[in-house]
Amino acid sequence: MMNFDGKVLALTGGVGGAKLARGLIECLATEQLLIVANTGDDFSHLGLSISPDLDSVMYALADLNDPERGWGLAGESWQAMDALKQLGGADWFRLGDRDLSTHLQRSVRLSEGAPLSQVTGELCTALGLRHALVPMTDDRVSTMVSTAQGELTFQEYFVREQCVPAVSGFRFDGIESARPLPQLMEWLGAPDLSAVIICPSNPFVSVDPILSLPGVREALQSSSAAVVAVSPIVGGMAIKGPAAKMMQELNMPATAVAIAEWYGELLDGLIIDSVDRELAASITTATRVLPTLMSDLGSKVQLAREALDFARHLD
Amino acid sequence: MMNFDGKVLALTGGVGGAKLARGLIECLATEQLLIVANTGDDFSHLGLSISPDLDSVMYALADLNDPERGWGLAGESWQAMDALKQLGGADWFRLGDRDLSTHLQRSVRLSEGAPLSQVTGELCTALGLRHALVPMTDDRVSTMVSTAQGELTFQEYFVREQCVPAVSGFRFDGIESARPLPQLMEWLGAPDLSAVIICPSNPFVSVDPILSLPGVREALQSSSAAVVAVSPIVGGMAIKGPAAKMMQELNMPATAVAIAEWYGELLDGLIIDSVDRELAASITTATRVLPTLMSDLGSKVQLAREALDFARHLD
Repeated sequence: MMNFDGKVLALTGGVGGAKLARGLIECLATEQLLIVANTGDDFSHLGLSISPDLDSVMYALADLNDPERGWGLAGESWQAMDALKQLGGADWFRLGDRDLSTHLQRSVRLSEGAPLSQVTGELCTALGLRHALVPMTDDRVSTMVSTAQGELTFQEYFVREQCVPAVSGFRFDGIESARPLPQLMEWLGAPDLSAVIICPSNPFVSVDPILSLPGVREALQSSSAAVVAVSPIVGGMAIKGPAAKMMQELNMPATAVAIAEWYGELLDGLIIDSVDRELAASITTATRVLPTLMSDLGSKVQLAREALDFARHLD
Repeated sequence: MMNFDGKVLALTGGVGGAKLARGLIECLATEQLLIVANTGDDFSHLGLSISPDLDSVMYALADLNDPERGWGLAGESWQAMDALKQLGGADWFRLGDRDLSTHLQRSVRLSEGAPLSQVTGELCTALGLRHALVPMTDDRVSTMVSTAQGELTFQEYFVREQCVPAVSGFRFDGIESARPLPQLMEWLGAPDLSAVIICPSNPFVSVDPILSLPGVREALQSSSAAVVAVSPIVGGMAIKGPAAKMMQELNMPATAVAIAEWYGELLDGLIIDSVDRELAASITTATRVLPTLMSDLGSKVQLAREALDFARHLD
């Protein structure tokens, strides 16, 4: 635990952001931290309600994730998928046997009328988590990717097409009428909110859906809390996922400088990796230069501490 | 293959009847046999459409069933169920990992609007089956069991309550408006239908739902085909399942004689087991006395041959 005053809001996508979230739960008391995950990637598949980012974060927080594969559960088996393939079923989205149970249980509870935030809480409690992980909204928002092959749902783009089609833009279907989770708005308006940590997630398809929910960007800007992002771009590459490729296709340099410009006035500080130290001079917002690769629990906790310390000094 | 003229209709429930069906496909050409399975046990669970009898027969015909456990697939794993239990989900109906894929694929296809008969055909084809297995109807029929604990759905009675509550009757919810599968009625009306084999399945909850579909009993009675049943009661006990217990609770002796009386005029012949040879004199319909335990493929084929030969001599 770290000696830190006030509340912290963490905004995250899946795997990359989940690593920092894993560090944050070691640094902060239960009541100090709210982790808000993107649900723009959520989709229905095989009749199941799937929330990839929520699950990636939940599994990472519970130390159940597979760090080698980068998604899903460690020690997973694939009997159901193998059998489904034999039956001619859709096997392009790989669901492990144990992972399937998460989607089955979520689907059952949602069909019983429970909101996604409640179901997420139930799943997290069952896995022994004490810190709060919530979806950005209980409403449906679907990230749509404009590509050279036409508009694709995020999972069609990300998994089925393996991020190959060139990207020209994004649309968050349903965002206008989606209500940000009340808890998110409460924390954004709380006088004791000290820091907002934008985790090293894809700015376009992981963080932007959260920021685009009605009222969220405005609440962030009017909050006195320090907003600190960790650049997901390191040495011109994304640690995980298509962020760098997307930036190139969107005619942006794949650099931490462009990340700072993308977030713009929202940001009070940006943490960039040590390999990008020469970029610091080109970034107009406050910058800290640190090793940001999170390979083990120690490095996750260390980066979380640095981000919180940075926020405290910016506050 | 057996030298047999004409078409054969086999009516079956799950595991017990599936053994004889497995024998029948060795004796008859593809175009000679239609296997019709009970769907009164079908139910929705974890959001999945589950057809226990269809699957038992399908797996048995494809030699994928687990003969030790008596249900489900051989070599099955249980990762999803174990994880679901950890999540606090409903694990009273055990679904193996590979078995799950059958229910996922069926549910997907049904939700796409495909009728159950078509989906069953697709699954059977994917598993390499050439003989036709069809559901008794594409409509929903739900077997309800009246018990000392009130009315239960069949799976609540059978799996959750382990057949413990005393049974006082049955009701097939939806049967009045259910349409028997057109193929079933075509076969029943076909001039070249030579035999109807009632497999050794539970007469109350496996065979009676089929016979109770509007028009089926009448068509069976007006058909010139020989109707032969194999008694599911051997030596006062059911080989599998609660048939004998049900008979006692319904104040019927648990004997092959009572089976003959239950089917009544519908039957042209009954095959009873060698251990029950002294009962033959008390049965008014034609009777053959044979070893009826089907422990391996050879005994399944042998009983199928005997049933067909019996039907030929009754015809």
